[in-house]
Amino acid sequence: MANVAVLGYGTVGSGVVEVLERNKAEIRKNAGEEISVKYILDLRDFPGDPFEDRVIHDFNRILEDDEIQVVCEVMGGVGAAYQFTKQCLMAGKSVCTSNKELVARHGTELLALAREKCCNYMFEASVGGGIPIIRNIHNSYTAEQIRAVTGILNGTTNYILSKMETEHADYTEALKQAQELGYAERSPEADVEGHDACRKAAILSALVTGREVDTERIYTEGISGVKPADFEFAAGNGMTIKLLAVCRILEDGKLSAMVAPFMLSGNHPLASVGDVFNGVLVSSNMLGDTMFYGRGAGKLPTASAVVADVVDCVQNRGRSVMAGWGCGKAEMADIEECERLFYVRTAANAFGTAAKAFGLNAEHIARQECLRDGEYGFITPVMKEKDFRGKCLELGDVILSRIRVM
Amino acid sequence: MANVAVLGYGTVGSGVVEVLERNKAEIRKNAGEEISVKYILDLRDFPGDPFEDRVIHDFNRILEDDEIQVVCEVMGGVGAAYQFTKQCLMAGKSVCTSNKELVARHGTELLALAREKCCNYMFEASVGGGIPIIRNIHNSYTAEQIRAVTGILNGTTNYILSKMETEHADYTEALKQAQELGYAERSPEADVEGHDACRKAAILSALVTGREVDTERIYTEGISGVKPADFEFAAGNGMTIKLLAVCRILEDGKLSAMVAPFMLSGNHPLASVGDVFNGVLVSSNMLGDTMFYGRGAGKLPTASAVVADVVDCVQNRGRSVMAGWGCGKAEMADIEECERLFYVRTAANAFGTAAKAFGLNAEHIARQECLRDGEYGFITPVMKEKDFRGKCLELGDVILSRIRVM
Repeated sequence: MANVAVLGYGTVGSGVVEVLERNKAEIRKNAGEEISVKYILDLRDFPGDPFEDRVIHDFNRILEDDEIQVVCEVMGGVGAAYQFTKQCLMAGKSVCTSNKELVARHGTELLALAREKCCNYMFEASVGGGIPIIRNIHNSYTAEQIRAVTGILNGTTNYILSKMETEHADYTEALKQAQELGYAERSPEADVEGHDACRKAAILSALVTGREVDTERIYTEGISGVKPADFEFAAGNGMTIKLLAVCRILEDGKLSAMVAPFMLSGNHPLASVGDVFNGVLVSSNMLGDTMFYGRGAGKLPTASAVVADVVDCVQNRGRSVMAGWGCGKAEMADIEECERLFYVRTAANAFGTAAKAFGLNAEHIARQECLRDGEYGFITPVMKEKDFRGKCLELGDVILSRIRVM
Repeated sequence: MANVAVLGYGTVGSGVVEVLERNKAEIRKNAGEEISVKYILDLRDFPGDPFEDRVIHDFNRILEDDEIQVVCEVMGGVGAAYQFTKQCLMAGKSVCTSNKELVARHGTELLALAREKCCNYMFEASVGGGIPIIRNIHNSYTAEQIRAVTGILNGTTNYILSKMETEHADYTEALKQAQELGYAERSPEADVEGHDACRKAAILSALVTGREVDTERIYTEGISGVKPADFEFAAGNGMTIKLLAVCRILEDGKLSAMVAPFMLSGNHPLASVGDVFNGVLVSSNMLGDTMFYGRGAGKLPTASAVVADVVDCVQNRGRSVMAGWGCGKAEMADIEECERLFYVRTAANAFGTAAKAFGLNAEHIARQECLRDGEYGFITPVMKEKDFRGKCLELGDVILSRIRVM
């Protein structure tokens, strides 16, 4: 029998205990032995809880108990969670986590420590919730050169954008609905400004390059500037708008990573990932495009991903199996040099000037569209980020909206 | 260095050699050592081929060479391929295959043999081409009870149905186009009558139940009866038509497995899987729905899946790691007792009789639709397969089309 400890008895922590209990038989069969919760560490007591007797307040009891070989860190944050994780790994105990902030910030060190101590630091639940994307990048692309990973990695923003698209809601209304349903927090910045997706992009980028990627070096833009008129243009052109994390290995081997709203064709595999779902598209040189789709958040899907890692740790006692990434920073491409199409919305009286500034020819003008309120939307020719930004600065306030086009 | 032998230098076989060559560096890194093709077994010679010197005609050279620990069986068929696979496994050599017919027919025996000899029989490429569905069922649902696996598993039929949908083509035209593009064979029965999807359904069902599933026991219906008028009804009701393999574990633990065209809502995750792509939706008790999408066929995607298995075998020398399924047959549910909605199309003058026979009430009649040529389409109430069939028999020729509704 394998004994595990759960650090934090909040939403995910109680989910981990529930998954271990409800799917006991399957887990036992897959792990090759029973997995039992011996300790639940929390500051609070839980009188009346069926697992009340496992709740402890002293982390050292876990650390000093040789029976505990796997620890689930589902507390969140980068303070105590970081210290506890480090101490567990130092003691040769594997750690499974859903804590994307910690993985993004200290993953390199923690992975190195796990390798040194022949145990594992696993974090399937940190990206894409219940979508097994990390396990897949590690196990399923062993005969591939991965060229890009593009993902809808944040359920809150995907819900908001889906509402704006299907119900023609504006951003504030859609955010309010998301908050009422518990999909968005009262302080929604981490989600709507793209910080959550950025952490996940950093983790995926590190896995793909095999090197550390700082969140600070990933250009990140949120969705609060997206307007109903932009969805109107998108719909008229068979497109939609999604907050995408785009991690791409360029020809020169550098990593181009970005989180931003993108307009993408309705035929794009990620276009149909709606509501709170997440989707991750992996592009590799032999397989082409493969996509993974599922619930990106939620108590049980996230907990199930943590438990799948626990099973993996139990199956591989004494072996460090998930490579993760090594030391050294990934070399980042200069985003400013990246070339793409851009969508631009202008006031009616500014369309002529703007079109001229972006050098639109007859073919491009054919893709313009007159929107509600007499505004105009159009797609620029392919241009570099820096040139696009330069033009926008020149044109100033007449540019009402701008969104990258995938 | 690991030496491998490739049995069959056809499309997939030459793909395997190409993947091993082009992604040599990645494969070496992931496998922990170089993987090199030592023999290519084929009846033919390949003068001028860069691997000409590896081509041999005598299988015994492979069998007797202790340096060969992994063999790729990409010949197809259930004759020589079966004998060779058995002999390799008996000799403790792992076998990786794309041969779904062989896996569906003799997988139980070959898996048992691999376990006995502490080697592996792997078949990722046999279902969903380059989609890592088998590896995922094995590795990613270890904390789950899988309840259903629903898949678009045949690219040829998905291409034909997609053409019928988007270009309003009829079946014969769409099949002809598929043949011209090389997506369908000149004798297309294995694809269009659902036999190929049925083999894949048998493999997935066996993985999910852990027991053998005979293809003969899976109810299988092809797509040749689907008409443009049926797509017209589907489009009018926000639905589409897909050839689905549906494998479901019922409450009583029995397996319900079927391959047939289904009408499904445009919101269904599989609805947007178009063209020659494949998609597999896994429903499990904690994660809910997760979906995998990618190229279901083609030389390089299929070959990449075979090579991923080779890497797995090299990483796990002397260990039997893929459980597959055990001996004993899965207990099958009686399809006749399954309940669902059905779509029915009738001639105009027969609509009243048919509607009455199916006991349509006002709510259901609201979902009827008058189609081209004055025909009518409607959806029945929920009913058992046997009752539906009984009604259709009674009504006879006035039923022009019938398709299950997901």
